[in-house]
Amino acid sequence: MRRVLLPALLALLAAPPVFSDAGMWTFHDFPRELLKREHGVDIDSAWLDRVRTSTIRLSNCTASFISPEGLILTNHHCSEACLDEHSTSEQNLVRAGFLARARDKELKCTAQVADVLMGTENVTAKVSAAIHGLDDKAANDTRKKTLAQLEQACEDASKQAAGGALKCEAVDLYQGGQYWLYKYHRYDDVRLVFAPERGIAAFGGDPDNFQFPRWCLDMSVLRAYGPDGKPATTPNFLALRAAGPQAGELVFVSGHPGSTQRLLTVAQLQMLRDVDLPRWLLRAAELRGRYIQFGKTGAEANRIVEDPLNGLENSIKVRRNQLDALLDDRLLQRKSAEEASLRAKIAADPALAGIGDPWADITRAEVRARELSLPYSFLEQGAGFNSRLFAYARALVRGAAERPKTNTDRLTEYRETALPRVQRRLLAPVPVYPQLEKLTLSFSLERMREWLGPDAPIVRQLLSKDSPDTLATRLVDGSHLGDAAVRKQLWEGGQAAIDASHDPMIELAREVDAQARAVRKQQEDEVEAPIEAAAQKIARVRFKVYGTTVAPDATFTLRLNFGTVQGWREGSQEVEPFTHTARLFERAKGEEPFRIPDSWLAVKDQLDPQTRFDLSTNNDIVGGNSGSPLIDTKGRLVGLIFDGNIHSIAGDYWFDPQLNRAVAVDTQIILEALHKVYKANELLAEMGEK
Amino acid sequence: MRRVLLPALLALLAAPPVFSDAGMWTFHDFPRELLKREHGVDIDSAWLDRVRTSTIRLSNCTASFISPEGLILTNHHCSEACLDEHSTSEQNLVRAGFLARARDKELKCTAQVADVLMGTENVTAKVSAAIHGLDDKAANDTRKKTLAQLEQACEDASKQAAGGALKCEAVDLYQGGQYWLYKYHRYDDVRLVFAPERGIAAFGGDPDNFQFPRWCLDMSVLRAYGPDGKPATTPNFLALRAAGPQAGELVFVSGHPGSTQRLLTVAQLQMLRDVDLPRWLLRAAELRGRYIQFGKTGAEANRIVEDPLNGLENSIKVRRNQLDALLDDRLLQRKSAEEASLRAKIAADPALAGIGDPWADITRAEVRARELSLPYSFLEQGAGFNSRLFAYARALVRGAAERPKTNTDRLTEYRETALPRVQRRLLAPVPVYPQLEKLTLSFSLERMREWLGPDAPIVRQLLSKDSPDTLATRLVDGSHLGDAAVRKQLWEGGQAAIDASHDPMIELAREVDAQARAVRKQQEDEVEAPIEAAAQKIARVRFKVYGTTVAPDATFTLRLNFGTVQGWREGSQEVEPFTHTARLFERAKGEEPFRIPDSWLAVKDQLDPQTRFDLSTNNDIVGGNSGSPLIDTKGRLVGLIFDGNIHSIAGDYWFDPQLNRAVAVDTQIILEALHKVYKANELLAEMGEK
Repeated sequence: MRRVLLPALLALLAAPPVFSDAGMWTFHDFPRELLKREHGVDIDSAWLDRVRTSTIRLSNCTASFISPEGLILTNHHCSEACLDEHSTSEQNLVRAGFLARARDKELKCTAQVADVLMGTENVTAKVSAAIHGLDDKAANDTRKKTLAQLEQACEDASKQAAGGALKCEAVDLYQGGQYWLYKYHRYDDVRLVFAPERGIAAFGGDPDNFQFPRWCLDMSVLRAYGPDGKPATTPNFLALRAAGPQAGELVFVSGHPGSTQRLLTVAQLQMLRDVDLPRWLLRAAELRGRYIQFGKTGAEANRIVEDPLNGLENSIKVRRNQLDALLDDRLLQRKSAEEASLRAKIAADPALAGIGDPWADITRAEVRARELSLPYSFLEQGAGFNSRLFAYARALVRGAAERPKTNTDRLTEYRETALPRVQRRLLAPVPVYPQLEKLTLSFSLERMREWLGPDAPIVRQLLSKDSPDTLATRLVDGSHLGDAAVRKQLWEGGQAAIDASHDPMIELAREVDAQARAVRKQQEDEVEAPIEAAAQKIARVRFKVYGTTVAPDATFTLRLNFGTVQGWREGSQEVEPFTHTARLFERAKGEEPFRIPDSWLAVKDQLDPQTRFDLSTNNDIVGGNSGSPLIDTKGRLVGLIFDGNIHSIAGDYWFDPQLNRAVAVDTQIILEALHKVYKANELLAEMGEK
Repeated sequence: MRRVLLPALLALLAAPPVFSDAGMWTFHDFPRELLKREHGVDIDSAWLDRVRTSTIRLSNCTASFISPEGLILTNHHCSEACLDEHSTSEQNLVRAGFLARARDKELKCTAQVADVLMGTENVTAKVSAAIHGLDDKAANDTRKKTLAQLEQACEDASKQAAGGALKCEAVDLYQGGQYWLYKYHRYDDVRLVFAPERGIAAFGGDPDNFQFPRWCLDMSVLRAYGPDGKPATTPNFLALRAAGPQAGELVFVSGHPGSTQRLLTVAQLQMLRDVDLPRWLLRAAELRGRYIQFGKTGAEANRIVEDPLNGLENSIKVRRNQLDALLDDRLLQRKSAEEASLRAKIAADPALAGIGDPWADITRAEVRARELSLPYSFLEQGAGFNSRLFAYARALVRGAAERPKTNTDRLTEYRETALPRVQRRLLAPVPVYPQLEKLTLSFSLERMREWLGPDAPIVRQLLSKDSPDTLATRLVDGSHLGDAAVRKQLWEGGQAAIDASHDPMIELAREVDAQARAVRKQQEDEVEAPIEAAAQKIARVRFKVYGTTVAPDATFTLRLNFGTVQGWREGSQEVEPFTHTARLFERAKGEEPFRIPDSWLAVKDQLDPQTRFDLSTNNDIVGGNSGSPLIDTKGRLVGLIFDGNIHSIAGDYWFDPQLNRAVAVDTQIILEALHKVYKANELLAEMGEK
């Protein structure tokens, strides 16, 4: 599934484009001429505005409005956390599905928000002016501060404006080539309306993940509510086109691709290939084994491990294929050639004199990154403390220390514009499972001991008497941070409350904080800063050569791209772009993950075997695009993006037009399932379907 | 630990040397002149003969005779299977240790043998004559058949000779540059005499594995018995030098290094880097997680999983560091340069005309290897059927089919000379744990479905109705192959017994056999054969350039190498070559794997804190050298090799004289522990220690 990958691995991105064949275009630089030239179709700014304001950024996915009363369509896997939140050992909503038969039965998703992009502002000139003449480290600091100030000023200004308060976020496009402010209207209150059973939403499970042909109804329906507790009024929404799209038809994807690395340098890609990806994969594979074996110890264990296991398996598949893409030496050879050609441009262009060799600068920074990699990932990025309780503890400890500081002096994630998200996550009353906490914490402590070595200071400090198991057990059993009320007290109590706390997880977070901050500082000053500086130089060169005729790397901000409904050729075999209901039933088996839910078996005879189920297109998408609407030229919703094929994973590094395909749910099966399987008549009526 | 790695991954080795700085020399081509030149020491053939016949090849390790009555010294980790065999849920000998207070209390190790190399014979000319003029595929077949015939003839001849029956094994040195017959005296009856607790044998566990400084008493004592059931008479043995070696002293390691890949081509190393190692590591890491989590479900689970988990963690550490070595582009660049220089020799030397470009031939074969890799590893190499019961079933099914064939027409492992080992493994009454079988089998079936895909024929065939769990449970619960008597019946009953069997594991092995054999045939004909042919051509070139001034790659056959006792420089830090008892106790903690056994704590005050414990040398060793004697110039045992430092793992590809170090137990602590901790006075007396 196209889950967005968390930025841990991807934190250090910077540098120039290479093979941008397709393109995740911004709305403000959408290439209308290119579209006209290639497809003979023009879209106007009204079309763009309506699609933009119909598209939603969830905390982890994309979605779209499908009714004027705030009804939201997204993937099932984007709502799993909410389904989990309302599940109990008796009632597993992930497996059983859910349908609110009335609005007052809709379930609050406490950790979810819905953001709609209302406006954008180019602030490149302001940032450039602020850092002019500074050295790398000072420039890096000043850039961050300037962006924080711009965000804050934007939010303050919006409070006075007619449209109401907006969330303002700084966006870095083209690796520092452009800076923007993106301004969102945020819906804080999002509720669950409908989700099918996971058995049909993720039919085929991990084995079928990133595969096509596919038969998944990977959908869920949410609703945005206003601050008055009433359904939001959303005049801009996408009507469904019941018949779905045709083969070869031009279609658009509007959404929030999470991140791509198409502009990274060879040295950066080698760091991913040699260090980040193999190490991450080794740890993740072991954790997968632990999860699976834990899940076999009982029905409740199986339930609570299901969601983290699904997420992990998805990420493993993604990163495994990313590693394969990087191990193909042809990719690095092409990149090297492109770098050589850009270097030649520098040498030949007097206007670029004095720019030096920014690729060599990045190579040097990556040498340092390799040295810092282990302590940075284990101490600061959480690889050594894989625990929700620890994450709470760190947020509380750091929040107390950071909030009293001047806004621009804080760690990025505790600046005013970012605080609401920290607070929301911290205070959401999501369940914490002690058994699972012990598993992940013990695992990560054990691996920290393995990778840093038994004689590393942090390992001696924590594990001189205790084994990882003993320590994890003591910490988890002794902590009260699983209780949202306790967290709220500590959050509101500030530094005094933190100082007074004897919660063992708070104590641990306090104990490791100085070391973690120290290695983060090294990373920022000695890796991030020189890479940022070099990447900006490369961006200058690239702009001179390409302008904005290539799209910027994905940054989990709103993009629009176009493509057509099509299959591909896999070896000697032609893959058709549509699947149909008939084959779903042929492929079904008695057991997970190929078991069809009873609700479907009960109405099997009423379902049209020729209904289109899933489909593939050559739109250029990546993780974060999950839940994106697939839109026709008239702005109607014809499908729901939920995945890519296996070749789409290499899309992180380049778009292969022969093989890379997006995968969507066809509106045909969405409507048929709502009608015949779930009999969701109110829902259909609201969507304008009789 | 220097466990020998099973050949699954290493099956396809072939090709030319590169940086042989050290050298695992054969006894028949030992460079006495080089030794004299570098160290001013000469060793004569009497020395070589005595050391050779004092050195033992166990089924998994090296060992040496240390008394005239068949007493054998090896590592603890080499005897874990035997300790396991005699353990029960009440009495865990791996953890508790063992000392036979009388000879009739010594415990039979049913799966162990002790081979002593009695003679060698160069048969290169015979093999060359047999394959002269044949194409690659025919040459590959004929070579195997010729070697099988030579082995058989050698064994037949030995039965008539004075020394008694010998085991004859064909050995390929220099990737087909030389073929030899190695002739062993085999002791079939090997018994356990002594083993310390695992807590001290493997103090520091996986975290300390491949680390130095170290404090492990990784020793065990076995005894060889004759066919008459009496202790073997072994006039050639190594006396212990109680004081151990001095820093800087010249020392020898005699042993059986398992395999190195120093002569592989770039294409072969890339195959390891891109395909074999990452895939193996991903699966192994997950299995590790499953083992660990399974071990937490109870004391008995913890016991039965301990040995496989230790072995797996060791292999993971090895292969992870191998991958790191291959990801260092400098290694491949050096290899590429060496290949270019050898290519130039071909071009310049009329005697080598017509040899073509064997490196390109290997590159082509590796393309095919990549295509075959998944089905070959899952179907034939056991990655899809990770189960001891399945291994039994396959050996029974194939044994029945192969044994009636002409010897040379059989699959290699069922030829006459190899059959005793198959039979021994099959009939040894080692315990089979159903829970563990289900775990490993379900895991491997699940990964087979993931990697081959749900629509692969074998996956459809096996998992169309069942989940991996269900199938594994049914197979394991239904099979009676855990009973050695049942296996014996089926083995002796031949094809008729196999045909009549309804054992579900036998049925499974029958069901997949045709597909597995088919992919093996493709692998042999389309990968192995062209690589063998090309490697022989490269070997010819190498011989012209280097002669035998470089040692052949390791092949788990007897080698001798020399070095000195020394530490190394790790970054800015000097690592001393000796550790002492004092620091062991300082480093001890209450919990595994840093918990010192009670037997040691009880006598702590009697132990001399200055006793040397472990030591490091720059001898060139790899897995398979575990248990090797460390020998001084007078032929006395001064230490017991059990590991290498972390840099020694890259020794698979090249020897780095700055960093690569072997790690041994010092005789000082061996004797002190036997005296003061274990009070093994009879044993000490037999070793000539009062």
